[in-house]
Amino acid sequence: MKVEILSVGTELLLGQIVNSNAADIGSRLALAGLDHYHQAVVGDNLDRVAAAIRHAVERSDAVIITGGIGPTQDDITRESICAAAGVEMEFSNAYAERLRSWWARRDRPMPETNLRQAEYPAGADLIDNPKGTAPGLRLRIGPAWVFALPGVPQEMLPMVDGSVIPFLLEASDRAGAAIESVVLRTYGESESRIAEILDDVFESSVNPTMAFLASAAEIMVRLTARAATAEAALDLIVPFEQEVRERLGRLVFASGMEPVESMVLAAAGEHGWTIGTAESATGGLVAARLTAIPGASATYRGSIIAYTTELKHELLDVGGAMVQDLGVVSEQTAIAMAQGGAVRLGVDVCVAVTGSAGPDPLELEVGTMIVAVRTPDAVKAKTLRLPGDRERVRTYATTAALQMLRLALAGEWWH
Amino acid sequence: MKVEILSVGTELLLGQIVNSNAADIGSRLALAGLDHYHQAVVGDNLDRVAAAIRHAVERSDAVIITGGIGPTQDDITRESICAAAGVEMEFSNAYAERLRSWWARRDRPMPETNLRQAEYPAGADLIDNPKGTAPGLRLRIGPAWVFALPGVPQEMLPMVDGSVIPFLLEASDRAGAAIESVVLRTYGESESRIAEILDDVFESSVNPTMAFLASAAEIMVRLTARAATAEAALDLIVPFEQEVRERLGRLVFASGMEPVESMVLAAAGEHGWTIGTAESATGGLVAARLTAIPGASATYRGSIIAYTTELKHELLDVGGAMVQDLGVVSEQTAIAMAQGGAVRLGVDVCVAVTGSAGPDPLELEVGTMIVAVRTPDAVKAKTLRLPGDRERVRTYATTAALQMLRLALAGEWWH
Repeated sequence: MKVEILSVGTELLLGQIVNSNAADIGSRLALAGLDHYHQAVVGDNLDRVAAAIRHAVERSDAVIITGGIGPTQDDITRESICAAAGVEMEFSNAYAERLRSWWARRDRPMPETNLRQAEYPAGADLIDNPKGTAPGLRLRIGPAWVFALPGVPQEMLPMVDGSVIPFLLEASDRAGAAIESVVLRTYGESESRIAEILDDVFESSVNPTMAFLASAAEIMVRLTARAATAEAALDLIVPFEQEVRERLGRLVFASGMEPVESMVLAAAGEHGWTIGTAESATGGLVAARLTAIPGASATYRGSIIAYTTELKHELLDVGGAMVQDLGVVSEQTAIAMAQGGAVRLGVDVCVAVTGSAGPDPLELEVGTMIVAVRTPDAVKAKTLRLPGDRERVRTYATTAALQMLRLALAGEWWH
Repeated sequence: MKVEILSVGTELLLGQIVNSNAADIGSRLALAGLDHYHQAVVGDNLDRVAAAIRHAVERSDAVIITGGIGPTQDDITRESICAAAGVEMEFSNAYAERLRSWWARRDRPMPETNLRQAEYPAGADLIDNPKGTAPGLRLRIGPAWVFALPGVPQEMLPMVDGSVIPFLLEASDRAGAAIESVVLRTYGESESRIAEILDDVFESSVNPTMAFLASAAEIMVRLTARAATAEAALDLIVPFEQEVRERLGRLVFASGMEPVESMVLAAAGEHGWTIGTAESATGGLVAARLTAIPGASATYRGSIIAYTTELKHELLDVGGAMVQDLGVVSEQTAIAMAQGGAVRLGVDVCVAVTGSAGPDPLELEVGTMIVAVRTPDAVKAKTLRLPGDRERVRTYATTAALQMLRLALAGEWWH
């Protein structure tokens, strides 16, 4: 069962939004073991959407279209499906009634334009949208199944999980089609260095395959195998995974996709320690990543963001003399921030980040970032020199701070 | 000159990363007035990449390929171009020498696998990569130009700006091909309500066109016109923009893409006021957005993130009795946080956010978020009820906090 994704929206072509929908659907197709080889994006143009649908149904068994089924004038996916399938538009009185009562329940008058959402290409079944007003569509064009879903992720993804993927699994006779992946995540070496270490391991292997992916400061190694069952696919991966782990040693810090911030919270919890953060140049990014994890409040207490020298002094007890002697940004300052943060926040573990993210150099070269970690066992700092612009420097420094927190909590302090 | 984008990488299909490259290139093509109707994604598979290239050169005048030209074994874009163009692979001794000296300058041994980057399809010109080791490629397949660039954005985008777009502009005889867009950004009403207000304005207009885009709590209205020159295109937009602005009134808060956090910093600067933040449920996201703006330190001083009741008390002076009487999360608490934050951070303006982002309900229903803003003129709070999961609630509350900060700084307090 080959499934492809067609995203409709001029805002995607213009780069006003990023196509996270295709990524979210793609990861779900992989998990379900459905083949997925193509994604396409077209703008809000009837002829081009229709042509893209026709091209997709020729090479794939199913096409998931997202976007263009909302209530506004630029939503033309329904019309494009009619054109591609050569069918007329029909109107569902039952759905129109549902739309009216949806708005009535919210005590708001329904904009009349919303009635467009009760239109559907002849022959299509409507797919229930539990989170919104635009129903999805499912119909056959030639031998392929075509699904049209809303572009809003909060509405679209529950429909993919609840309707589209169960339907495709049911419709496919996919004996021998399980795909399994193991992802080993590394920290501390470049992508090309890791590729070199593993160069010969996969030389003669087509199943499993190996791929590399750099994500901020982390490099992922992905092993993917295909077999009759999920168990058989995983069995194929085992010896390769073992070899990769042996060669990479401590560079591998995780398998799977659990973010490092979640590992940090769990590790601190095991010690019975609370965590706080003291940030300057990263301006809240470390705190934001830790608090993005549900249940963070069991371990994480808070943060002081001191964006000025005075606040470093007043709120983090970074000494005035020290600031004068050592400059605002030094390993000693970062250590003082981590110590002061631990006291002021009343936490066992505190990570501090300071430095120069650019674009204008302060007393340090842009990209020089300093991270300090304080635990009940020790306190230590490290200076990083990061390439790129302000956003990249801040993002990499945030990942580095979380990775160093992880290392410190594991007792693997750096040198 | 029709330009399309082909992104190569199995990690995109698997949803392990989001295709921000296509968005970044797309926005640059739009700015340059180059037509851009299609984007496609394929995995690291020689046959499928070659087929995608052949399909693209049939319908477009230029194809920008990103990804798959790195040093590792899964990088197969060069081979795929050879297959699509029907040419042999050649080897550049000159580039091999450059690679060796690049690594030598960094005092590191070059992994031998990097030499693959000196290979190129016969007939291709190498495009200089100022930020990395993998050169880009440019060659003709049939009547179309094909460009291959690295997948790493920090290397790829300077090559698009410095080489690809200037080349395409030079190569195109695009009289009458200027595209101009005006984006009006609104806050305070739903997409369908705004579409209804504007329903008849564009009914008979094909130039300019109108499109809507929801981005967190903001709805953008984009007017796009095409004409012989940029000036003529903008002239076409003027009367429509005027009508849209009249109908939407104060809902429109900006044209263009300047983020609200940047507008907030500028507005505070005009008053001569400093800004601080006091966050609970958003855990640093408001601070992170403000400090992402270069030069934020001129206005922004810092933040206290109090993720526990005790820290709200200790660091923000939120009274113990109040917490007991009113619950941890109330408008009174948010106001006390904003007041306490202003004092402790020594700032004129402080925004506070507290609430319940989920997934587990605290004493409040999940999605109930409270924002308070304190300026030297007044202090006021507002309770929001936001749908969606933890990530969405935190993101929307962050945008709402910045929007309310903007309104307060403009003296437009809510009721």
